Amino acid sequence: MTEPFDAVDVIRTKRDGGSLSPAQIDWVVDAYTRGAVAEEQMSALAMAVFLRGMDRAEISRWTHAMIASGERLDFSPLVASGARRATADKHSTGGVGDKITLPLAPLVAVFGVAVPQLSGRGLGHTGGTLDKLEAVPGWRAALSNDEMLAQLREVGAVICAAGSGLAPADKKLYALRDVTGTVESIPLIASSIMSKKIAEGTQALVLDVKVGSGAFMKDLGSARQLARTMVDLGTDAGVRTTALLTDMSTPLGLAVGNAVEVEESVEVLAGGGPADVVELTVALAEEMLAASGVPGADPAAALRDGRAMDVWRAMLRAQGGDPDAPLPRARETETVTAAEDGVLTGLDAYRVGVAAWRLGAGRARKEDAVQAGAGVVLHAKPGDAVRAGQPLLSLRTDTPERFARAREALEGAVVIEPAAPAGAARRSVVLETVR
Amino acid sequence: MTEPFDAVDVIRTKRDGGSLSPAQIDWVVDAYTRGAVAEEQMSALAMAVFLRGMDRAEISRWTHAMIASGERLDFSPLVASGARRATADKHSTGGVGDKITLPLAPLVAVFGVAVPQLSGRGLGHTGGTLDKLEAVPGWRAALSNDEMLAQLREVGAVICAAGSGLAPADKKLYALRDVTGTVESIPLIASSIMSKKIAEGTQALVLDVKVGSGAFMKDLGSARQLARTMVDLGTDAGVRTTALLTDMSTPLGLAVGNAVEVEESVEVLAGGGPADVVELTVALAEEMLAASGVPGADPAAALRDGRAMDVWRAMLRAQGGDPDAPLPRARETETVTAAEDGVLTGLDAYRVGVAAWRLGAGRARKEDAVQAGAGVVLHAKPGDAVRAGQPLLSLRTDTPERFARAREALEGAVVIEPAAPAGAARRSVVLETVR
Repeated sequence: MTEPFDAVDVIRTKRDGGSLSPAQIDWVVDAYTRGAVAEEQMSALAMAVFLRGMDRAEISRWTHAMIASGERLDFSPLVASGARRATADKHSTGGVGDKITLPLAPLVAVFGVAVPQLSGRGLGHTGGTLDKLEAVPGWRAALSNDEMLAQLREVGAVICAAGSGLAPADKKLYALRDVTGTVESIPLIASSIMSKKIAEGTQALVLDVKVGSGAFMKDLGSARQLARTMVDLGTDAGVRTTALLTDMSTPLGLAVGNAVEVEESVEVLAGGGPADVVELTVALAEEMLAASGVPGADPAAALRDGRAMDVWRAMLRAQGGDPDAPLPRARETETVTAAEDGVLTGLDAYRVGVAAWRLGAGRARKEDAVQAGAGVVLHAKPGDAVRAGQPLLSLRTDTPERFARAREALEGAVVIEPAAPAGAARRSVVLETVR
Repeated sequence: MTEPFDAVDVIRTKRDGGSLSPAQIDWVVDAYTRGAVAEEQMSALAMAVFLRGMDRAEISRWTHAMIASGERLDFSPLVASGARRATADKHSTGGVGDKITLPLAPLVAVFGVAVPQLSGRGLGHTGGTLDKLEAVPGWRAALSNDEMLAQLREVGAVICAAGSGLAPADKKLYALRDVTGTVESIPLIASSIMSKKIAEGTQALVLDVKVGSGAFMKDLGSARQLARTMVDLGTDAGVRTTALLTDMSTPLGLAVGNAVEVEESVEVLAGGGPADVVELTVALAEEMLAASGVPGADPAAALRDGRAMDVWRAMLRAQGGDPDAPLPRARETETVTAAEDGVLTGLDAYRVGVAAWRLGAGRARKEDAVQAGAGVVLHAKPGDAVRAGQPLLSLRTDTPERFARAREALEGAVVIEPAAPAGAARRSVVLETVR
């Protein structure tokens, strides 16, 4: 018995409402990573944290213990005009139709800021950035650290898979939380996200904290608390961090899936695209550029004049992708139409996300494949007037036996009222900023 | 996926403060027993139960799901005078110096009630009944169900190891709770104890719920709640169940260990022994006999006149034990003396229990052996006047390097005051009865 602590004592401390000491936290995260604290012990601790919470000092220490479990990336070799080149990153807590990383990374790179976007795959009703880009023929997600650095140097933006070396404690803990009902805990979510982002070594970070039915955080209060926790963690670790709270009550844009979201991103990069996607892309770019010390940049102009598109095409090519190749299309389509005349006042993000997932755009288990062409395309957004019989949604899949369960998921997703509620105006996607 | 529930949904229901449905409980206990619910999922659920509780209906269903995980014993073949013979059992929640099962089982059998005492081994600071009896040369704890029935028929009393067939879900869950900080939960303690006792098939059950430093339950309020929960569970299952709340602030009797507790039990069976051990043995016997429909029995007389001793000797012999063989003695003894003149007002049960454990009477891990002769012998009880230098405790062990850590455990265990507090009288061991 050479361990300095007993796992049961650590669990009991938190179970009984106490604070874990820095030494207890360092030990339990390290011992869990090397297997000296068992999965069943960590899951009991995670449930105790879920129900008892952690204070700011505990969350910070927990985050740093997870960082210390693995390697840290180093972008200091990136030099521009003799000085270290600025790096900025964005993280979204996950939503439906959230393809923003795709236009955003090349857009910010236009202004000389390097954007290393380490991304993940989708699980559940929210899609994954890597799954979306893999709809591009030839594109590959896996890069070595050297390849990533070289691409940042030459193209300025990279979107690739996070290596397994960053915060392995988080990787192990996240898989455990997923099967033990301990995901939706602010201390555990915040430390999970921020341990990877801090280990990644970016200088500036903008967090897109989603609020609403399609997000982890269903209400503004808990989203604010999560944003505040993460901004404090980043700031304390020397990363210039801000957060935007953004609306996820309805899908972002008109496309939910993989290839369909790439298409919509290309529209935005071509100066078009849905207003909400453009708004959020530009707002996040402005935050990243301001945090990187690039004042007076006009990202909206860089979307309109093709500079962002040029970086996008170079970024895809650098990872083997062909920006001119046609994207996959699903073999089968069904249409959901409006049942009555009126105003579309609700189109529920969560239900649309589940429908797209069931159509094949997402996976139920990590080892499942996704369909590149599957998903949901919206023909109206909340606030639009609609006529009975008008198409509202197109459902797309290669496997038509999936339509029935997708339609089940959509029950109650569409709300049509005789008129828009008094005082209703189309809301801005960005609800609040937390600095 | 043929499982009717998802473990994560069940965990979330309890985590969020809801009640589990009967079908959820039946499923999760069964699925855990067969491995379809993983250890880490059950530990998260156990922590959620610990912090959120369970209502009466949930506890009852949980208990019955654990019973349904295994076999049930059947004592109906036991017949006396043409009618089914009454069976009665006692369960103690565990204390220091608690050897009551040893004199109690033969004492109750004197009156024609069969006493099947399925017992366990000690872990931690409380000793185990089987460890104590194994100090008797030749005695064996393991009996088949047929041997147990035969001994009940012929001798009337049996104390033996519980087979692995009773409530295997409880066995698995108890081992998990032990390493995950989820032991001290009233719903989980109550269902664990009662699942085994109900599966055992006894008609009457008396619970000895200990209260005080040496017990699970440190205060009368939580002990009352545990007793009420278990009495309700037993009654609902058709077992005539009562509970005594008894004092465990100081050790029971004068002997704490294995062979030393057998010796003290034999003194009680010979009509002598410490007053508190006699009081509790007789009180529990009266409850068991009343619940078995044997009115007007005089168990105190059966201790004095040797009838209980006769059953004790027959019971040991039936399991290979030699009641006349000398008991093992520890090789080394050290004495703790009084530091001053006064009245002994405190002798802490928990600290004495830990000292005995460290001397070798108990085990740290399930696979450890115990020393038959190790333990602590008391020379004074709270309420006694003492003189400086007078022996208070004898520490016994075969391995004298253990004395130092045993003495550490005893720091603060002994309280001597100039005079007894006003109004102090020696308390009854039995504090309350719950029916």
